[in-house]
Amino acid sequence: MDFLTIIDYIGTFAFAISGIRLASAKRFDWFGAYVVGFVTAVGGGTIRDLMLDIPPFWMLQADYLIVTASALGFVIVFGKYVIRLNNTFFIFDAIGLGLFTVVGIEKSITHGYPMWVGLIMGTMTGAAGGVIRDTLINEVPLIFRKEIYALACVLGGLCYYLCMYLGVTETLTQIIAAVAVIIARILAVKYGISLPNLKGENQNT
Amino acid sequence: MDFLTIIDYIGTFAFAISGIRLASAKRFDWFGAYVVGFVTAVGGGTIRDLMLDIPPFWMLQADYLIVTASALGFVIVFGKYVIRLNNTFFIFDAIGLGLFTVVGIEKSITHGYPMWVGLIMGTMTGAAGGVIRDTLINEVPLIFRKEIYALACVLGGLCYYLCMYLGVTETLTQIIAAVAVIIARILAVKYGISLPNLKGENQNT
Amino acid sequence: MDFLTIIDYIGTFAFAISGIRLASAKRFDWFGAYVVGFVTAVGGGTIRDLMLDIPPFWMLQADYLIVTASALGFVIVFGKYVIRLNNTFFIFDAIGLGLFTVVGIEKSITHGYPMWVGLIMGTMTGAAGGVIRDTLINEVPLIFRKEIYALACVLGGLCYYLCMYLGVTETLTQIIAAVAVIIARILAVKYGISLPNLKGENQNT
Repeated sequence: MDFLTIIDYIGTFAFAISGIRLASAKRFDWFGAYVVGFVTAVGGGTIRDLMLDIPPFWMLQADYLIVTASALGFVIVFGKYVIRLNNTFFIFDAIGLGLFTVVGIEKSITHGYPMWVGLIMGTMTGAAGGVIRDTLINEVPLIFRKEIYALACVLGGLCYYLCMYLGVTETLTQIIAAVAVIIARILAVKYGISLPNLKGENQNT
Repeated sequence: MDFLTIIDYIGTFAFAISGIRLASAKRFDWFGAYVVGFVTAVGGGTIRDLMLDIPPFWMLQADYLIVTASALGFVIVFGKYVIRLNNTFFIFDAIGLGLFTVVGIEKSITHGYPMWVGLIMGTMTGAAGGVIRDTLINEVPLIFRKEIYALACVLGGLCYYLCMYLGVTETLTQIIAAVAVIIARILAVKYGISLPNLKGENQNT
Repeated sequence: MDFLTIIDYIGTFAFAISGIRLASAKRFDWFGAYVVGFVTAVGGGTIRDLMLDIPPFWMLQADYLIVTASALGFVIVFGKYVIRLNNTFFIFDAIGLGLFTVVGIEKSITHGYPMWVGLIMGTMTGAAGGVIRDTLINEVPLIFRKEIYALACVLGGLCYYLCMYLGVTETLTQIIAAVAVIIARILAVKYGISLPNLKGENQNT
């Protein structure tokens, strides 16, 4: 089990925890919480794979199901203490976001798509799971209103292509891009950086 | 028209009715109710087929559109009496759930996927349509909170693979698995069996 | 840049504006508004392309991203005046609906699907983006309750196949079908034509 795989599991675990916790707050049963956790973790990558016309990555190995099951077990057993671990999960989530973004970009490049598609696929891999999660629990997606989240993926993606352009080796490129996402995300939360919102009109079309 | 086809139509009809009734309660117009009914009936199978990278089954024959139209006509004409038929529809729904689960598992096996993918595909075929339905009518998905529903599909799927392992003939395997789903579902509703839910935390991540 | 491309951009722009405006009303940030606008504009065509098993159209050229960005810039700069332009946007939206419907039908025919699949694909191309939009902003989809919308696509589609049957040239067929959608939509809004809704039952299944 190499380093990347471990990071992948950590990211999956963190994403699953966030889904399971929000589902719990809505009184979902264990099965519902498991589904929401799983969808949060693999939803973005699944949409990406469908658009790239390749089999969804989690259908090729059962690991993601097992990691999600561990996350559910963790919340069931340590539920009361999970809240205190907020900072830990935030870091895990940021690490997962960075890794997922890089994975999404690489898959796009492998399939011959240009940079802007890679940016979208990277961002979608990182952020779409959370959007599906919020839709399932019937809430307005958080990431569209709070601190910079999906934009951190875009920034990381730009670093990725900048490194490629400068001829940086692939491994270093991956690390730089993922770290860029993580740092952007940490700074955004630490300093409460969010994008401006549009003046709400009260009128619907 | 063989026996399996008739069961398939009955299941589609029952699923469509459930979508149309919930859409009606939200004051959707006829077209909206039709769409919600159709999506409830074919949504799970459509996601399955997209993931298996085969054409959505309902695009190959118009039958599912026609069955949904019959369901809409039925609700329009017999609306007042539909409520009294709750028990009948519950049985239809359970039968559809059993059949859809078996269809999902078989398609997975045909495409060479392992057991755990088959369990997911079977469950998704049976239960995902209802989740999309609840999302469209802007409600928290029922199946994540009420009596055992998706888990009945998982149980039926386990029976399926157990029969396969024991060398039971294919037809008998299908019947046993479908009946297991139906019985699990009936017992769950009769005795109000539901999974525990997680203690809701009031704090969101 | 030919005539059809210009129409396509206008439709995309109008659809994106509708998504951005509704997202703004929900206090989405700029990025969220952009995503909702983009999904409103390309969501229907994306589902269609996934079902037809071809690459999503917007992944082949960056134009749709750029048009959506223009729409966002437009709302940011002219936000206050956008409301006064309601009638203009309504016409743009109707034009886009007509064009999108025709594009959806043609793609279905190209891939060898029968008429009824073409009607669904055309309607989905025109109307599904708005449904995803409403799901993302956590509202019950408007098009299932207000004036005739998706049904205008169906009517236009029927005109398309009628023209084909009568041997009308392809270009004229396209124009007639698109104009039929636009006129149906304008008449529906002008005279407040909507489908009946089903008597709401208060009971959920």
